[in-house]
Amino acid sequence: MFLSAGPLLVQSGAMNAEAALAQLVSNLPEGVVVTDPASVEKYREDFARDGSAGTPLAVVRAENATQVQVAVRWAAEHRVPLVPRGAGTGLSGGSSAVDGGITLSLDRMRAVEIDPACQVAIVEPGAFNVDVKRAAAEHGLWYPPDPSSFEICSIGGNLATNAGGLCCVKYGVTTDYVLGMDVVLADGTLVRLGGKQIKDVAGLSLLKLFVGSEGTLGVITRAVLRLIPAQTAGATLVSRFASMTEASRAVVAIRGTVRASMLELMDNVSINAVEDWRSHGLDRSTGALLLAQSDAPGEACAVEVEAMRAACVAAGAEEVFTTTDVDESAMFVAGRRNAFHALEQRGSVLFEDVGVPVPLLPDLVDGIAGIAATTGVEIALVAHAGDGNTHPIIVFDAADPDADRRAREAFDAVMALAIALGGTITGEHGVGRAKRGALLDQVGPDVLDLSWRVKDALDPLGILNPGAVLPPRADC
Amino acid sequence: MFLSAGPLLVQSGAMNAEAALAQLVSNLPEGVVVTDPASVEKYREDFARDGSAGTPLAVVRAENATQVQVAVRWAAEHRVPLVPRGAGTGLSGGSSAVDGGITLSLDRMRAVEIDPACQVAIVEPGAFNVDVKRAAAEHGLWYPPDPSSFEICSIGGNLATNAGGLCCVKYGVTTDYVLGMDVVLADGTLVRLGGKQIKDVAGLSLLKLFVGSEGTLGVITRAVLRLIPAQTAGATLVSRFASMTEASRAVVAIRGTVRASMLELMDNVSINAVEDWRSHGLDRSTGALLLAQSDAPGEACAVEVEAMRAACVAAGAEEVFTTTDVDESAMFVAGRRNAFHALEQRGSVLFEDVGVPVPLLPDLVDGIAGIAATTGVEIALVAHAGDGNTHPIIVFDAADPDADRRAREAFDAVMALAIALGGTITGEHGVGRAKRGALLDQVGPDVLDLSWRVKDALDPLGILNPGAVLPPRADC
Repeated sequence: MFLSAGPLLVQSGAMNAEAALAQLVSNLPEGVVVTDPASVEKYREDFARDGSAGTPLAVVRAENATQVQVAVRWAAEHRVPLVPRGAGTGLSGGSSAVDGGITLSLDRMRAVEIDPACQVAIVEPGAFNVDVKRAAAEHGLWYPPDPSSFEICSIGGNLATNAGGLCCVKYGVTTDYVLGMDVVLADGTLVRLGGKQIKDVAGLSLLKLFVGSEGTLGVITRAVLRLIPAQTAGATLVSRFASMTEASRAVVAIRGTVRASMLELMDNVSINAVEDWRSHGLDRSTGALLLAQSDAPGEACAVEVEAMRAACVAAGAEEVFTTTDVDESAMFVAGRRNAFHALEQRGSVLFEDVGVPVPLLPDLVDGIAGIAATTGVEIALVAHAGDGNTHPIIVFDAADPDADRRAREAFDAVMALAIALGGTITGEHGVGRAKRGALLDQVGPDVLDLSWRVKDALDPLGILNPGAVLPPRADC
Repeated sequence: MFLSAGPLLVQSGAMNAEAALAQLVSNLPEGVVVTDPASVEKYREDFARDGSAGTPLAVVRAENATQVQVAVRWAAEHRVPLVPRGAGTGLSGGSSAVDGGITLSLDRMRAVEIDPACQVAIVEPGAFNVDVKRAAAEHGLWYPPDPSSFEICSIGGNLATNAGGLCCVKYGVTTDYVLGMDVVLADGTLVRLGGKQIKDVAGLSLLKLFVGSEGTLGVITRAVLRLIPAQTAGATLVSRFASMTEASRAVVAIRGTVRASMLELMDNVSINAVEDWRSHGLDRSTGALLLAQSDAPGEACAVEVEAMRAACVAAGAEEVFTTTDVDESAMFVAGRRNAFHALEQRGSVLFEDVGVPVPLLPDLVDGIAGIAATTGVEIALVAHAGDGNTHPIIVFDAADPDADRRAREAFDAVMALAIALGGTITGEHGVGRAKRGALLDQVGPDVLDLSWRVKDALDPLGILNPGAVLPPRADC
């Protein structure tokens, strides 16, 4: 069979695909290798809904690390592309299937164990982020990274993308919480990195290299995650602005005075999409909504909230509202978290994840509005504004070729804008397949050359998630 | 000339050392290449004071990134080992000179620029950690990582080792603050990674790979460091215990309830060494001193301090003392910070940096006491106890061959103990040359093989700091 990703084209020899697959099936317990088309179909795309996703030969639903090793060794032996997959909720096509490859799903590996004395969670990659949070909470502990999809996304996927979330503005991202990891390398070797110790600089920083590697350097089969004490219930501030530009300026001002535990924005398009889908009590006439939280202890919370309120007023807020009511707060946060899903109900979507240094947020939102106007495309905007990380969401009718063309033009233009502002094409979702065309523009040929050297060192056959992250060498 | 590090032995061809060096001198401005023996002597060792450190052909005191590139290209062309060096305060022999190599000192590259709007510091690698803190403080900002040597150690060295410090128990380590970096690769190419944006997952996690790479993968010429708002002045708790074992149990208990902003231990040996050197007001009869701080805002500080006090009492504290007096607090912290220097006045020292998961701290300190007894060697002990990261410091008379032998036996035994407890041989100082003999025992042959593949990908000629971190391939 052929490995048709980029410049590597290798015929695996005498054995044909059918025979090779039969060998894989016989090497694994019954039911682990899935080949019926109806089931396989479910594993072709992730939430990027990439129409060009391939069709794998099979899906391997591994139950443990040993089976992962078997699958990887088989893929290496037969030069078959292997796409690791968590819950398939990625937004960048990072786990889109490759034609003629296998998709290695970790969805069955869902164990979560808490070591409360060490304040760590030992997790399998298929466990959902919410499973880790729940298990930690039983011990008064907290695993902070909280992508909006935390109830349905896998820890493995979080590790692969170095996922962020709403609380990251104060508590950091996934990589800041990884203490240890088991990884199956491209030749099937399983290595154990790190452990339960908090600080460890023994050797090269390989642990941190695998976090964010989007399945291109190895398959994570276990991770040790640092936990911290449960978050203090604090207060929520909600502020209305006439425009995203003004709201962005408020974000910049807030960031200069307070370490908010949440600092998010929603624009009028996203607010209305959310209210169309399910009422969250958001005012549909709002130009821009700023949603912030302080979890400072005791009276310090009120002090922080007041500082944030003052910053909003100074930036021209039409209204500022604060609450310590848990349910009320939860409703606003849910509105923010449900934006993606709500917008998907409106049509086809293209998800962006661009980030800029925070002071340039107003320039970014203005530029995005300009792109929407120029291309005649609807772009909703929500943002982890306190981090400078935004999610422009392009909504369009994919059945209309002209609309499709303009949508993709807007997609590219938004990334180009972020790069021009000195920022990034992806703050937390990952490059996947959807954004790799813009990676060269952001990092340049020397960094890509360096990246390929690392990639080749770990995956000389190029079997691990080919087509994800790094553009073909010839394009670098 | 020959590159005599490990298995790579290459004769560079017709040009002899003298001619090659003359070429380097002519390629750089006058005064950049230092060859007079008296000056070169100062760059042979770092604070590990490794008697077997080599003598370089020359020291290149680069003034800018271009000169760094010139030096690296020259080293690559002539196959000359190149040892990057910050302030030379490393404790693991990471910048010990290599015979016949060049030491590339970044000590002249000391610029620090603060971008207060973005809340970042843009630094050159020779700047001292304290320079960054001072510059940040002028803008009400803070760069947290604080090795005890922060007043004399370089940011470049901090990056190379992923340095920690006293506040890391709450605020994290160096790698958690690195947003961007310029690195000169082994072929002289300069690459720019990251930027001022807070979140960035575009491509592989190369930025995090270089942090902690101890000069073996590239030479850092610039870094963008994240800053946070200035730390709140809080309160200090000092508690006396009869033994380090009991004090360790108090640390474990504290960690279960409070996120202390500092949580350190000192033993009787280190206390007396400090008081011998300069009075800090520490009680010489103290078995073990626990030094903790809370920087929680407002009344939450008192709540945290009370929780810590109660934990100490429950663990058998002989005395607990708390203060909010800035000078009083500073004196205790200075006592802790000065332990290394004070112990060096007593004789030759071997610095350890072992770490274990925090609940195993009592077992570690007991084990270390056992090793001291068994080998008949004096081992002082200070610790970033809240992280489980300890600094056993072996004090001995290097002129006495038997004492020297027993000291090195103790050194190895302490690392073996940490490994046996599932921990690490180095939590923040780095492997350097001093500890690479134990790296295989900790991480195993597969991780070392993986490490060598990454190293070879980035430095195929093996010119960057050969002999540091990774044991020779044949030993893996």
